Amino acid sequence: MDLNAYLDEVRGLVLDEIERIVPSDSRRNEDLYRLVLDYPLRKAKMLRPAIAVAVCRAMGGNLQAILPTAAVLELYHNAFLIHDDVEDGSLLRRDKPTLHQQHGVPIAVNVGDAMLALALGPLLDNMELLDLGRALRILEAVRRMAVESTEGQAMELAWVRTRTWDLDERDYLRMVHKKTSWYTFLTPMVVGGIAAGAGPDEIVRLRLLGSLMGSAFQIKDDLLNLEADEREYGKEIGGDLWEGKHTLMLIHFMRAAPPEDVARARRMLDTPREEKLEEDVLWLLARLGECGSMRHGAEFATTRALAAKKRLAGLSETLRPGVHRDFLGELMTYVVARDK
Amino acid sequence: MDLNAYLDEVRGLVLDEIERIVPSDSRRNEDLYRLVLDYPLRKAKMLRPAIAVAVCRAMGGNLQAILPTAAVLELYHNAFLIHDDVEDGSLLRRDKPTLHQQHGVPIAVNVGDAMLALALGPLLDNMELLDLGRALRILEAVRRMAVESTEGQAMELAWVRTRTWDLDERDYLRMVHKKTSWYTFLTPMVVGGIAAGAGPDEIVRLRLLGSLMGSAFQIKDDLLNLEADEREYGKEIGGDLWEGKHTLMLIHFMRAAPPEDVARARRMLDTPREEKLEEDVLWLLARLGECGSMRHGAEFATTRALAAKKRLAGLSETLRPGVHRDFLGELMTYVVARDK
Repeated sequence: MDLNAYLDEVRGLVLDEIERIVPSDSRRNEDLYRLVLDYPLRKAKMLRPAIAVAVCRAMGGNLQAILPTAAVLELYHNAFLIHDDVEDGSLLRRDKPTLHQQHGVPIAVNVGDAMLALALGPLLDNMELLDLGRALRILEAVRRMAVESTEGQAMELAWVRTRTWDLDERDYLRMVHKKTSWYTFLTPMVVGGIAAGAGPDEIVRLRLLGSLMGSAFQIKDDLLNLEADEREYGKEIGGDLWEGKHTLMLIHFMRAAPPEDVARARRMLDTPREEKLEEDVLWLLARLGECGSMRHGAEFATTRALAAKKRLAGLSETLRPGVHRDFLGELMTYVVARDK
Repeated sequence: MDLNAYLDEVRGLVLDEIERIVPSDSRRNEDLYRLVLDYPLRKAKMLRPAIAVAVCRAMGGNLQAILPTAAVLELYHNAFLIHDDVEDGSLLRRDKPTLHQQHGVPIAVNVGDAMLALALGPLLDNMELLDLGRALRILEAVRRMAVESTEGQAMELAWVRTRTWDLDERDYLRMVHKKTSWYTFLTPMVVGGIAAGAGPDEIVRLRLLGSLMGSAFQIKDDLLNLEADEREYGKEIGGDLWEGKHTLMLIHFMRAAPPEDVARARRMLDTPREEKLEEDVLWLLARLGECGSMRHGAEFATTRALAAKKRLAGLSETLRPGVHRDFLGELMTYVVARDK
C-alpha cells in the first residue's frame, strides 16, 4: 500500500473538482478566483479529501458520491489556512509566502470568505447527486464542523490573549478536538460514511476514530515543529516557541518543570515575538527535552494512534478490506511516524 | 408611517432571534459568543431584517416564517462588517472602537468566521419551519448573496491595490450591485418573497427593486461621508478621500475635471493614508463640489430612488397595502433623504 500514491490520485481528482466549483467563465472576477486556487494548487497533501474518499469507498459507496463533498472539505481547510495565516502573522505556507504577504490582509481575508461562500454550492448540489436525506446530513455535518473549528480557534486565541498557561491535558485535548480533529479527521470520516449510506451507530464509531487520530496528528505536528532542523523542515528552529503556541509539550513542561524554569519560560513566552531572545528560545527547547516533555508528547501521540489502529481493526464489518481500508490503516501509522 | 418605530420593533424581534441562535449554554465558549453578539447589540438599524420582514408580511406571509432568515441576514452583515473593518483598518464602528481594535485582528477574524458558521443553522432549521422547497430556495439565495458580496469586495479591493481610476459609471454600478445591493436589498427582498410563497416572476421584480435601491443607498452613503460635519457624523471630514474609496463622485470627477486637477487628485489618492496632507484632502473635497461631482452623485441617487418608488407603485398586486408596504415606501424616501 503506497500512501503517497493514494494521496496523489485523490489530489488530482479533487483539484479537477475544485476547478469545476470555482467560477471560470467570468473574466471580471479572474483575480479573485485565481487567488482562490492559489493555496490548493500549492503542494497540498489533501489529506481531508483522501480520508473522506477512503471511508466512502471502503463502505461500498462510489467515488462520484463523495467527490464534491471532499472538494468542499479542502476549500474549507484552505479558507481556514488563509485566515489562520493572517491571524498568526505567518510568513510562509507550503514553502511560499502566505497570501496576505503577497497580496495584503484585505484581499487575503476576502479570498477566505469567498472560499467559504463557494463551498456551499456543491453541498446544495448534493441534493441532486445523493438522496435528500444524505445531502442534508452532510450539510449539517459541515455546519457543525465550521462551528466547532471556530470554537476551538477561539479557545486557543483566548489562551494567547490572556497569557493562560494554567492548563491541563484535558483542556488541551478539548481544544485540539474542536480546532483540529473535527475538521481534519472526524468530519471527513463522517461525510464519507454518510455518502456511503452509513447508519447512526457506524457514524458514532467513525467519529471516535477521527477524534483519536486528530489528537495524535496535532501532537505529532507540534513535535515536528519543535524538533525541526531549519534546513529540512523549511521553518525556523523552535517556531512554535517564538509564537508562544499552546502545545501539549509546553503544557506538560509547565506542570513538570521546577518553579524557576516555569517562571523563566512564562516570561519568555509572554514576550512579543520580535522582542524574544534566541538564547531564551533555545534554552526552553533544550529544557523541554531534559524535563521529559518531548518524550511525553511522543508517547501520548503514539498511544492515541495505537488506540486508533485498534479501533480501526474492530471496524472490519463497517470498512471492507481492500485498498481504501489499507490506506486508512497506513494513515494511522503515518500520523505519528512521518518526518514532516 | 413611522419608519423608525417599524425598524425598532423588528430590531427587538431579531435580537431575540439572534440570541436564540447563538449558543449560550456552554460556559467554555462564552468569550467567543459574547463577541459574536457585540456588533448586533450596538446601535444597529437592522435594515436588512426589516426589509425581509416587510416584504414577507406585505405578501401575506407570517412573521415566524421569515424571522430566523432575517436574523441570518443580520449575522452575515455583521460578519462582513467585522472583516471589512479589519480589511479597511477602520477605527470606529457604530460609535465604538472596532472589534479588532478592542481584541486584536486574530480574534476579530475568527469571530466573523464563527458568525458565518452559525448562520447556517437557522437555514437548515428552515426545512422544518417552512416546506422543503422554500427552505432550499432560501439557502440558495443566501449562498448566491455570499458569493456576490465577496466578488464585489474583490472588485473594489483590486481597484485600490492596482490604483485603478480609469473607471466609468457602469464599472461602479456593477461593483455596487455585487458589493452592496445584493446583500442589503436584493436578498432581503427575495428571501422575504420566498418565505411568503412568491413565484419566479415576483422574485424577478423584487430583485430589480432591490438593485435600484442598493445603488441609491450606497451613493447616498458616500455623499454623507463626504458632506459630513465632523461633530455630527462622528467621522472625520472627507473620510473616504483619506481611504481613497472608489465613489461615484470621484469616478465622475476623474472624467469631468481638468487634467491637472485629475493628476493632483490621483497623486493624493495613491498616497498612503498616514502620509496624506489634510490640505490636499480639503482641496479635493472642495473641487468635488466645484466640478459638479457632488451634485451629479445626488441627482444620480435620487433618480434611482424615484425609479424604485415607481417600480414599487407598480407592484401593488404583489405587495399588499398596509403598514408593511408603507414601510417599504418610506424606505425608498429615507434611502436618499436621510441625513446620517
